[in-house]
Amino acid sequence: MKTHTLLMPLDMHLHLRDGVMLENIAPLSAYSFSGALIMPNLVPPVETLEDVKAYKERIMATVPNDFFEPYMTLFYKNYDKKFLATIVDHVTAIKLYPAGITTNSEGGLSSFNIEEMRETLEAMSILGIPLCVHGESDGFVMDREEEFMSIYELLATNFPDLKIVMEHITTKAAVDMLDKHKNLYATITVHHLLFTLDDVVGGMMMPHNFCKPIAKRPEDLDALLSVALEAHPKVMFGSDSAPHSKEKKECSGCAAGVFSAPIALQLLCEIFEQYDKLDNLQAFISDNAQSIYKICPEFKEVILEKRPFIVPASYSNVVPMYASRAINWAIRSVE
Amino acid sequence: MKTHTLLMPLDMHLHLRDGVMLENIAPLSAYSFSGALIMPNLVPPVETLEDVKAYKERIMATVPNDFFEPYMTLFYKNYDKKFLATIVDHVTAIKLYPAGITTNSEGGLSSFNIEEMRETLEAMSILGIPLCVHGESDGFVMDREEEFMSIYELLATNFPDLKIVMEHITTKAAVDMLDKHKNLYATITVHHLLFTLDDVVGGMMMPHNFCKPIAKRPEDLDALLSVALEAHPKVMFGSDSAPHSKEKKECSGCAAGVFSAPIALQLLCEIFEQYDKLDNLQAFISDNAQSIYKICPEFKEVILEKRPFIVPASYSNVVPMYASRAINWAIRSVE
Repeated sequence: MKTHTLLMPLDMHLHLRDGVMLENIAPLSAYSFSGALIMPNLVPPVETLEDVKAYKERIMATVPNDFFEPYMTLFYKNYDKKFLATIVDHVTAIKLYPAGITTNSEGGLSSFNIEEMRETLEAMSILGIPLCVHGESDGFVMDREEEFMSIYELLATNFPDLKIVMEHITTKAAVDMLDKHKNLYATITVHHLLFTLDDVVGGMMMPHNFCKPIAKRPEDLDALLSVALEAHPKVMFGSDSAPHSKEKKECSGCAAGVFSAPIALQLLCEIFEQYDKLDNLQAFISDNAQSIYKICPEFKEVILEKRPFIVPASYSNVVPMYASRAINWAIRSVE
Repeated sequence: MKTHTLLMPLDMHLHLRDGVMLENIAPLSAYSFSGALIMPNLVPPVETLEDVKAYKERIMATVPNDFFEPYMTLFYKNYDKKFLATIVDHVTAIKLYPAGITTNSEGGLSSFNIEEMRETLEAMSILGIPLCVHGESDGFVMDREEEFMSIYELLATNFPDLKIVMEHITTKAAVDMLDKHKNLYATITVHHLLFTLDDVVGGMMMPHNFCKPIAKRPEDLDALLSVALEAHPKVMFGSDSAPHSKEKKECSGCAAGVFSAPIALQLLCEIFEQYDKLDNLQAFISDNAQSIYKICPEFKEVILEKRPFIVPASYSNVVPMYASRAINWAIRSVE
């Protein structure tokens, strides 16, 4: 049976939520990943050192027997440099949300005033804390990411020593930015390597494929595939796996988020094999992230094998992407 | 209190379904409309004279006490002219669906071979039977209608004496066609005068706003409003009101269709008043359709008044557009 081995897989954009949801889903990521960058959009958001430490402890309590590192993040505000110096050893990045743009982002930034942000972003540049950004305007849903490119330009040129990660990119416009500014990086989800808007509303309307940013056009999908499959050194895997209960998805107003964490490695093997690029998956799933974030995850070896695997209909009360569908790769072992 | 009177409102694109659903919803249209063009996409589709007569009888049985005319349609196939001569007095139009493009369209046309269609479309031209078309390609969801414009061109130029109605148009591209070909007409829904894709997937995902063709971009909405508000003489109201049970909308694969019939007149008053075009609503809601289809509906006078009206949360087990929301106009009386 054909197998493929991945070393220290990393998920550089993960929502673990809190409480019972955290307990139910964190073990699924901890099983197959060496570590993950944990998003701070709890209610209320993670914005103090105490919040970071306490959330990390709650995460670790759910996965006592796994080698799994939760790389913590702080919810972006215009913090002063004294505060940032106290948290630098406890967070891997700071995550910026435009206000109201996605789940639990109400406390985010309502305008991009460079002068108001200068102290924070210069301190982050000096301290070496990357800025992760949910890059969407408040415009028409298909244009939001492309419209945000001018903000990335502004940030990248004003803070040339700041590492800026364009999170969960979905457009050719964002892909094109990677080679324009040396300090711009990106994460890409597995669902955005498979979906266009057709998979959300092109046939039946599919709430479990609905996320923000929404999947875009075929030419955008092609652009994302091109940099992911080549493992462009500025691109990393970030699942943006974002669980909601079935009741919050299959209803009259469905929450945004695709739950992909437990099947991400299997699907990535399928995609990279399909394009005959399996050799590049290691860089996309781990090596690039290690270089970009300067992190050294503990050893973990995941062996996948090519055999039919039926995705579960649900994990506790969360319906995953591709629920009940057969995919071509499965996890054989994790060591 | 401000009032507005509409005479003989017509809904030139209506799905009444069959069985219990028909019994539940037909009275809602029959109450406020003088007549409606009834879509033939039942399972199996309406495609014989017997089907037409029997379906019309089933409709009339649900609305015994209303002055309501169901203008019947036949599901398009390449019929011969002899057959068409036998049905001309029993149908108002023939409705063409590309195969598989929407609910119950599996028996539709899988290719547009003009020579294979010639006998049918020439006979329809001679007999004066309009062709109503669901104009979407099988391409990317946001491009489907625009891609179909070449088919409209082909039909309009090859059959210059055939009246062709572009159903439920959603794009500027379709609006632009109206003045290019004298034999092209269009219906517009009320939801496409209010929604863009933002209302479907721009915030939460809204299954009750999901329909085919899907609502498009802001500039498309503007183009639709421009011809509707001016009551362009080639444009008519057609609700495309398409009920599905709540269970088929709020689930893992939501059916396409917005249920708007019971609130269409109220919403149209609100829209036309907002743009100070109430005087044009009569042409959009009835007069244009009478001219285009050469129909003379029985007298019905609907008086609407400007007062808050809370849209019901559901009509039997169907959730309407704007469920539980307050709108600004209500029906005062129907005579």
